[in-house]
Amino acid sequence: MTSAPAPDTTTRTGIVPDIALAERLFDELRARTGSAGAGITRTSYGLGEQIAHDAVRREATRLGMHAEIDAACNLYLTMKGNSDGPGLMIGSHLDSVPDGGNFDGAAGVLAGLAVAAGFHAAGQKPPVDLTIMAVRAEESTWFGASYIGSRAAFGLLASGELDGVLRAGDAISLGAAIDAAGGDTAQLRAGTPYLDAARIGLFLEPHIEQGPVLVAEDTPVGLVTGIRGSFRHRQASCRGVYAHSGATPKSARQDAVLATSHLVVAMDEAWQRLEAEGHDLAVTFGQSSTVLGEAAFSKVAGRTNFSLDVRSQDAETLDLMRKELQGACKRIEQRHGVTFNLGPETTSTPAIMDPAVTNRMAALAEKAGIPARVMPCGAGHDAAVFAGQGVPTAMVFIRNRNGSHNPDEAMDVADFARAAELIAALLESWDPAGM
Amino acid sequence: MTSAPAPDTTTRTGIVPDIALAERLFDELRARTGSAGAGITRTSYGLGEQIAHDAVRREATRLGMHAEIDAACNLYLTMKGNSDGPGLMIGSHLDSVPDGGNFDGAAGVLAGLAVAAGFHAAGQKPPVDLTIMAVRAEESTWFGASYIGSRAAFGLLASGELDGVLRAGDAISLGAAIDAAGGDTAQLRAGTPYLDAARIGLFLEPHIEQGPVLVAEDTPVGLVTGIRGSFRHRQASCRGVYAHSGATPKSARQDAVLATSHLVVAMDEAWQRLEAEGHDLAVTFGQSSTVLGEAAFSKVAGRTNFSLDVRSQDAETLDLMRKELQGACKRIEQRHGVTFNLGPETTSTPAIMDPAVTNRMAALAEKAGIPARVMPCGAGHDAAVFAGQGVPTAMVFIRNRNGSHNPDEAMDVADFARAAELIAALLESWDPAGM
Repeated sequence: MTSAPAPDTTTRTGIVPDIALAERLFDELRARTGSAGAGITRTSYGLGEQIAHDAVRREATRLGMHAEIDAACNLYLTMKGNSDGPGLMIGSHLDSVPDGGNFDGAAGVLAGLAVAAGFHAAGQKPPVDLTIMAVRAEESTWFGASYIGSRAAFGLLASGELDGVLRAGDAISLGAAIDAAGGDTAQLRAGTPYLDAARIGLFLEPHIEQGPVLVAEDTPVGLVTGIRGSFRHRQASCRGVYAHSGATPKSARQDAVLATSHLVVAMDEAWQRLEAEGHDLAVTFGQSSTVLGEAAFSKVAGRTNFSLDVRSQDAETLDLMRKELQGACKRIEQRHGVTFNLGPETTSTPAIMDPAVTNRMAALAEKAGIPARVMPCGAGHDAAVFAGQGVPTAMVFIRNRNGSHNPDEAMDVADFARAAELIAALLESWDPAGM
Repeated sequence: MTSAPAPDTTTRTGIVPDIALAERLFDELRARTGSAGAGITRTSYGLGEQIAHDAVRREATRLGMHAEIDAACNLYLTMKGNSDGPGLMIGSHLDSVPDGGNFDGAAGVLAGLAVAAGFHAAGQKPPVDLTIMAVRAEESTWFGASYIGSRAAFGLLASGELDGVLRAGDAISLGAAIDAAGGDTAQLRAGTPYLDAARIGLFLEPHIEQGPVLVAEDTPVGLVTGIRGSFRHRQASCRGVYAHSGATPKSARQDAVLATSHLVVAMDEAWQRLEAEGHDLAVTFGQSSTVLGEAAFSKVAGRTNFSLDVRSQDAETLDLMRKELQGACKRIEQRHGVTFNLGPETTSTPAIMDPAVTNRMAALAEKAGIPARVMPCGAGHDAAVFAGQGVPTAMVFIRNRNGSHNPDEAMDVADFARAAELIAALLESWDPAGM
């Protein structure tokens, strides 16, 4: 992270986000939750996440904001607004993957805090109540499930998850970890919601981009149209017949590697074809392996195990790809004498971001001379939970190199400042009566 | 193994192989080198192999054959012939893979012994000296190298192999194992050959088929045209770039699974094309895996490791496939932004079986009403070493279900009997002056 030039407040009117505050907090989080030569670790409901929550709470309290936590230890920091309409929320998560980066999640919370500090410094109130939310346990790496904090805030955490899911590394159950952090799992088990979707005028999640698009297009800010939903087969397999590589003619083979390769190529071709027709898609076979101890270089492969992840902003496109997958499997099974077993399918529903808010931000960005690109979001985020509850939801992406979930995440604070500036402009001009 | 009907000696003239002797020996080997409910284990230079050598020697001695062993403990059992011309050899190996089948290797030695017993029973001498050879250590599973016994017989065992190669399971060096079995590694180190290729008129290796062709074509006997040579990449890899499966657009991906799948499909297409042009080929990617601990279902794969085994009877076809491989790698690298590293290449040279002998056997089979099919051999055999030394060499395949190197090998003794009958006819009519 390089330092931004001091904001040119002489020529700019309105709320100026406190970027220096965000920089201090980024530095503090790096120092207290990172290790030299390695990445950042802020375990969900663990020490690193707690340090981040406490630091953010401390700074918000200095700004006169009111702090609350819900039964799942999500943190809400509220600045009273001028009117009583549905409130504005800015939030993201403060946990990280093991040896992750400093910006994934934290950038969203600190962008919100910087904007709130801008209101405070200007002696102004936001148009309605402004709540910065630090969400718990977004990363699925710890408890094998996503969006734990945001789902819990809406009373959507399944009771079985509290006892059945153990944390990677220390095998503490989710319920025990929540109670140890000061939460109240009895309320979670009862399904009592803390948030009321009808009382939220906007949930805005700023987040570093986890792909390469903004870097490739030399654009600091992205405005997200939707969060892709998915269908996934994490434990798919192809069963053929092991046979001697030298002694088995082509016609007698039931080759699992060849069949799986045809499936990968067929699904890639389907992606190309549908993308050319305008569909939003991402198709990934991230894991594919013959079986150690069974496969050999001199044997036709009798089995592969593989994973498939298909994502789209559009549920109909996912349905089309399901049909492509079934058709390709059937054709390949018939031609190669193999059997595909796709295993369980897990799904997530695409979440549409509020187009009025996204359009409004695009107009504000143009007015402020901030290059911004409208784009889909391929990864999952807490914003999807809010959108799923009917909350008007938006996401702002901040340019970032080297992807995320690794220590090499690289966000320039200048880009962070431009995103915060855009958010401040949106909030300042927010009309509680409607867009 | 089901029992054969008693040979109809009333209508057949000439040498009648002693199939009952072979059956007794198969049963003895199964009882003494197998374990109930599992397969056969005749470790190279180990107990099981020694039991088999001793049993064969005992029976041959009863037939009045002369027994010798060479410095590598290969066993030669010789029946004097009518004339002094270059001798006839029938042989194969008596070791097995761990938990293998009872017929792989042993069928060849016992077919030779059954034919020799036929000469003995008829009170006839073969036209020239007939030697049944029990070859040591053919299976590469024990010492990681093939054809140890037959190479040693020609003084071709590299000195480094004696000390550098340790047996799977007990880590005894090859040299120590040979000496423990009664061999003489000093002679092997000196490269002293036991066999003189010029003194061998024919090396004939009967062997169960290890592929499915004879079963599929309902044919008891195969006549081998050649043993395929190969080039192999056991440690090939494809390097791409790991990336977020949801956030990385198609154009920005460097996907190792997709690239490897394209390579598998391209090499399969090259196989189809060349086979349609009349080339003999077998192309196998037996192992292909993303990297445990790096790959994830939600990541574009940054690496695969894979093996490639290309076999053909024709060295020029192997060269053509090398070019296909290089071309495909280059095209895929350019299109997908990945790098293939094929790693070391190991090769074996195709071995042509003597066409005059094969044609003669085809004619004899037709005359005797034995359905026989002319076919290539995809697996490696000791016969390849003899052919490589310029010995006129032939192989007879015996129909066998369920492949080899497993306890489910299934050869009918009736098929074994027909192969032995064909070999007896060949030997009986052998003209020492030339075919």
